[in-house]
Amino acid sequence: MSPTVGVIGGGQLARMMIPPAVALGIELRVLAESAGESASLAVTTIGDFRDAAQVLEFAAGVDVLTFDHEHVPQEVIAAVVAAGTPVYPGPTALLYAQDKLLMRERLAALELPMPDWARIESAADLKAFLKSHGNRAVLKTARGGYDGKGVRVVRTADEASDWLSAGEPLLAEELVEFRRELAQLVARRPSGKTELWPVVESIQRDGVCAEVIAPAPGSAGRIADLAADIALAIARELDVVGVLAVELFETTDDRLVINELAMRPHNTGHWTIDGSTTSQFEQHLRAVLDLPLGATGCREPWSVMVNVLGGPGSGALTDRYSLALENQPTVKFHSYGKQSRPGRKVGHVTALGDDLDDVVYRARAASEFFGA
Amino acid sequence: MSPTVGVIGGGQLARMMIPPAVALGIELRVLAESAGESASLAVTTIGDFRDAAQVLEFAAGVDVLTFDHEHVPQEVIAAVVAAGTPVYPGPTALLYAQDKLLMRERLAALELPMPDWARIESAADLKAFLKSHGNRAVLKTARGGYDGKGVRVVRTADEASDWLSAGEPLLAEELVEFRRELAQLVARRPSGKTELWPVVESIQRDGVCAEVIAPAPGSAGRIADLAADIALAIARELDVVGVLAVELFETTDDRLVINELAMRPHNTGHWTIDGSTTSQFEQHLRAVLDLPLGATGCREPWSVMVNVLGGPGSGALTDRYSLALENQPTVKFHSYGKQSRPGRKVGHVTALGDDLDDVVYRARAASEFFGA
Repeated sequence: MSPTVGVIGGGQLARMMIPPAVALGIELRVLAESAGESASLAVTTIGDFRDAAQVLEFAAGVDVLTFDHEHVPQEVIAAVVAAGTPVYPGPTALLYAQDKLLMRERLAALELPMPDWARIESAADLKAFLKSHGNRAVLKTARGGYDGKGVRVVRTADEASDWLSAGEPLLAEELVEFRRELAQLVARRPSGKTELWPVVESIQRDGVCAEVIAPAPGSAGRIADLAADIALAIARELDVVGVLAVELFETTDDRLVINELAMRPHNTGHWTIDGSTTSQFEQHLRAVLDLPLGATGCREPWSVMVNVLGGPGSGALTDRYSLALENQPTVKFHSYGKQSRPGRKVGHVTALGDDLDDVVYRARAASEFFGA
Repeated sequence: MSPTVGVIGGGQLARMMIPPAVALGIELRVLAESAGESASLAVTTIGDFRDAAQVLEFAAGVDVLTFDHEHVPQEVIAAVVAAGTPVYPGPTALLYAQDKLLMRERLAALELPMPDWARIESAADLKAFLKSHGNRAVLKTARGGYDGKGVRVVRTADEASDWLSAGEPLLAEELVEFRRELAQLVARRPSGKTELWPVVESIQRDGVCAEVIAPAPGSAGRIADLAADIALAIARELDVVGVLAVELFETTDDRLVINELAMRPHNTGHWTIDGSTTSQFEQHLRAVLDLPLGATGCREPWSVMVNVLGGPGSGALTDRYSLALENQPTVKFHSYGKQSRPGRKVGHVTALGDDLDDVVYRARAASEFFGA
């Protein structure tokens, strides 16, 4: 009998679990919000992830339940666990990926390095934070943000009046003076065994991950050790099972501080499909099934991943591919099978090699043809 | 709109087209003989590939039709071509992969290197061939053979009396004194553009491919050039589109002679999934869609693929995997999602590295745990 993994959410993360599921002989079932989503090739149930009854019915047919996104309500996850289906990451761990305020409180208790932050419940709270941080703050809604949504840089409390009047507590963070953004991914089994990929550099545009360089240039040694220690501590203390992504700032004064957490395969790990012996998608499936983890070495000295965003009026896939493939025969292409909309992530490309400038050039060139 | 590729046959070759189809945003549709076959995750129609009406209906929904096996009757393929759906490889090319006698006649006309052979229509024909070849011959049915079936070594005409009385012409070949078996794979687009992988060594057991070493040890230079020239000539002269596998004997007197042809992804190319920049499955999809071909370089100096055969009483997949994965974290596993039967190909493993002895050891060890 094949083991069966259920994934809540039918986006590109679920889609990219299909190839390793095929290779490992795992049956992948997806609970999607509508037909024709990115992962629709998997055995798909259409349903509402907020509805406990629908999720319970879906979960009854799988050996373990996991996620393509972090938006499933805690009470729904609790109901699945109570019904006897393992859920990884578990509800207690996932809470800290769902709620940024709880995450800051928990990581502070663990004395892990973070930006200055404060819980904001009123304009007075925010004014006090601004006053002590040079009249600038990154303000975040505790829940529901992603890809730059739910995040705002403010200089006065007035600029947050809409969020403040909504009555939900907010998170204020200092505007970190950073040199670059890094991400450390780790996979962890229920037994506690872990495997880390090398720390990577993540280049953001408009709050969205645009490019990833693996490993992060110049990170060997101190930076890599710091990033690994932080990710391993979080995975262990929060009892994360599956892939954990820790987004980090490398500050101008040479510290690493924790920016965000995700408890699932993450955009900063897409390079692993082509660049590592074991991809984050294969490793996530292995981890949630409590199978031994694969090796995480790099296939080439450098891997560069570039996201492909929907263009204004893209032609047929084959026409765009023909140009991209013709010009970049060594680059690997990944389509998310989505309708193209300006700014929407519709795929990514990965180039590998031993000359970083050349690898960056090939990945960017392929991405431009592909997304044109 | 995604391009749609239809595959006749739902076995492991169709299954292994799923991951690159997902990556490239290609919709894969499979015409399978029954439900639950190896490639059942693809959009599957159950039907009979011998029935022109059923194949025509299937072909009407795809942009191009290709194959997981070579058993589709010529008249069925001709009907699809007449109805306007491109079929690759085309019926004229495929004929030479379907009929070994026609293949020998055609390659002889092209003056390509082959074992001595003869068309056998009677006991007298066979006696004459035996007499001139040391009273030994490899006798083959012209059609329907695979994995050692339809092949027999005979020393007297009596040993072939059943086949001779069936009334179909047979192919007799000299028993080649060979040092080892090689295979050369090439992919070709309708435009004629080609890409070759390096020539590999194929180790057979009981007439079935057991292991593949890529590239074939010591093949750089003369052997590689000879193999490439032969495969390119066949691909061009027979107008093959898609992947062509040419199985070769390296004789004890240092010649290469052609053993068999296959016009689809082939067991001797499974190593390319993990060992080459572009796998044979991705390349086959690119070729039949007339998309530019990918680079075919090796990711590591050596790749070794070992087939996994069904064992006597295999336990749960997760138990077998746990052992195999635990011990060989760098090996890549490929399950065909099949019920295990003794001797049945149920998967394969691939190891990569720069020390051939170590790579062979890891691949064999992983295969033994996996198949136990």
